[in-house]
Amino acid sequence: MRHSGEGEAHRLPQAAAGLIAPLRARRPRVHCITNTVAQAYTANMLLAAGCVPSMTLSVEEIGGFVASAQALLANLGTFDAERREATAIAIGAAERHKLPWVLDPVFVDRSAPRLAFARELVAKGPRVVRLNQAEFEALAGASARQENAVALARDTGAIIAISGPTDLVTDGTRVVTIANGHSFMAKVTAMGCAGSALVAAFLAIEPDALRATAAALMMLGIAGELAARDVKGPGTFATAIIDEVHALDAAALLAHAKAS
Amino acid sequence: MRHSGEGEAHRLPQAAAGLIAPLRARRPRVHCITNTVAQAYTANMLLAAGCVPSMTLSVEEIGGFVASAQALLANLGTFDAERREATAIAIGAAERHKLPWVLDPVFVDRSAPRLAFARELVAKGPRVVRLNQAEFEALAGASARQENAVALARDTGAIIAISGPTDLVTDGTRVVTIANGHSFMAKVTAMGCAGSALVAAFLAIEPDALRATAAALMMLGIAGELAARDVKGPGTFATAIIDEVHALDAAALLAHAKAS
Amino acid sequence: MRHSGEGEAHRLPQAAAGLIAPLRARRPRVHCITNTVAQAYTANMLLAAGCVPSMTLSVEEIGGFVASAQALLANLGTFDAERREATAIAIGAAERHKLPWVLDPVFVDRSAPRLAFARELVAKGPRVVRLNQAEFEALAGASARQENAVALARDTGAIIAISGPTDLVTDGTRVVTIANGHSFMAKVTAMGCAGSALVAAFLAIEPDALRATAAALMMLGIAGELAARDVKGPGTFATAIIDEVHALDAAALLAHAKAS
Repeated sequence: MRHSGEGEAHRLPQAAAGLIAPLRARRPRVHCITNTVAQAYTANMLLAAGCVPSMTLSVEEIGGFVASAQALLANLGTFDAERREATAIAIGAAERHKLPWVLDPVFVDRSAPRLAFARELVAKGPRVVRLNQAEFEALAGASARQENAVALARDTGAIIAISGPTDLVTDGTRVVTIANGHSFMAKVTAMGCAGSALVAAFLAIEPDALRATAAALMMLGIAGELAARDVKGPGTFATAIIDEVHALDAAALLAHAKAS
Repeated sequence: MRHSGEGEAHRLPQAAAGLIAPLRARRPRVHCITNTVAQAYTANMLLAAGCVPSMTLSVEEIGGFVASAQALLANLGTFDAERREATAIAIGAAERHKLPWVLDPVFVDRSAPRLAFARELVAKGPRVVRLNQAEFEALAGASARQENAVALARDTGAIIAISGPTDLVTDGTRVVTIANGHSFMAKVTAMGCAGSALVAAFLAIEPDALRATAAALMMLGIAGELAARDVKGPGTFATAIIDEVHALDAAALLAHAKAS
Repeated sequence: MRHSGEGEAHRLPQAAAGLIAPLRARRPRVHCITNTVAQAYTANMLLAAGCVPSMTLSVEEIGGFVASAQALLANLGTFDAERREATAIAIGAAERHKLPWVLDPVFVDRSAPRLAFARELVAKGPRVVRLNQAEFEALAGASARQENAVALARDTGAIIAISGPTDLVTDGTRVVTIANGHSFMAKVTAMGCAGSALVAAFLAIEPDALRATAAALMMLGIAGELAARDVKGPGTFATAIIDEVHALDAAALLAHAKAS
């Protein structure tokens, strides 16, 4: 069986370009359950994109924060009892208010209890699961090949987005790849977490979750390519990519998008 | 009724300029109860200003840290049981040792339990309450107009500092405004939290809390204006403003201050 | 008694230079128990050096993360019940798997309960204890002089590394000093914590713990000197030093090392 996203792939850059201005104008609130390593960088990425981040994990108030947000990120980068309870409350609130949410199952390849928790969350209906190849292989119990990603998307009803030098995104029918990015992105902590937060941000304004996911990955990857032109290493790159996310417009996205 | 701070406003830049060298020389210890998003940026801001930050929240030791500090910041950006207990201990220690403390009631407009906790803390006698317009409106139950800020300052005995494109600062009698700053400051997470930490730092060396507050807001706002000259966006701005806080001297403060 | 490390000191730069390429090639996993202020900066420093950081504190999974790592950092910058429990589990796993671990007893001079906990950890056999002069004096109950450092190294069996404008490193027999670094390093939060993480990284690939420690301190200090050439202050310095750690090669290390 051959899955082809060619028709869709041709439309993706135009669709993504058309989402930049609405994102800046509507300033969606994105609530992030994320690890303490990633919180500040994720917040700055969302602010640069034009969104309003919030990060509380308190069980007393996370339901209220999610209820007044437009999207939710659940990142497993830290895994403790309080955070699991907060995650359950937040996902419950997202379901009640019909908010899209993204699961980022960080390091499930390194921790059996975390993998078990990620599987529980996948069953709760995330709109998108974004993860790297090692995490995909742990979660799916299969190699990170296109047909296995398609199968997982069909089984779960979620968009599966596998990040890497080329990102693979599928909803179980359409399959697209995005080849934007720079190798420094793997040398900055929380870059993947921040990317997942951008996916949540685009889900807040675009009901086609495959297009929203692709838009976020193109925005971040292109910003990375532009940032890498003027920097000496991953330290200055980490701040320059924030500038480029802030400055990116529809024309720049169209000029640099590599979707197929 | 017309509240005028004109006489005071004329003296503020000179007073603030006179505090820069003592701040660098005396290196006050500032203990910060702040959210995990803001901790690193706040610590770097205080170091750049010449202070010694500490950040522990452990109930076993926070009392000792506060007792050996010269000022305290209580920021509500995270709200959980451990942090509430730590805050109570820290404020108790500040009272016993007669240390000034600043309350930054982050996001009380988004969370009812947080608002209730902030009201308890306001009753415990912060020297300064620093907040944005939405937070003021939630806390005061009134619009963020000058007369309502004056009323809250009189009711609480605290300096009320409402941040925005123009900051409003009042002790219930004097009212001053500070128009320094740059729009990128709203695009960097923890900028407000770091500003509140600078207020605490100046309180450590200046007993007139209105002057201390104004000095901190001028220092940060002017640093923001200077940082914005050479940067492409909010990522590089966030690091450049730290450089400018580090470099700012009395002459630069006097040259750029916009107080009225 | 005169302790001389002269012969060793002459060999240190060459030994350190020889470790740079293996560190980048072997990409050791370094698990870090560190405070929330330092987590992101420490992770970025390890990534720049070519390592794979992990940071979880969850008692359910920290044992598994340590078991699949090559070195461990235990930093006391935050001190709460959960973290103490996680530290005990992590050190137990390090012992079982014969992994080297580094103790960084942050601020033991400011907190009696923290000092008591640090003493318990010293008794558990860290390969290296890295600390500043005030912390050494609290831990050793003696001034930060060479003979007291040598005595503590002999008593504990750990390398003692006292940081400062000149770093002192001893295993109880050899004593070396490293004079690399820049004053901005004391103006960036988490710089010491990140340095301790680099020590753990070099321990993962070099069994002579004195040489590993010296290599880490030279790498960071030289990167600091190179970063300081082009920056305006501690904000841009904090990102530039990451670039320099990323770029540093054997030749640059040899050209700039100041060991005696």
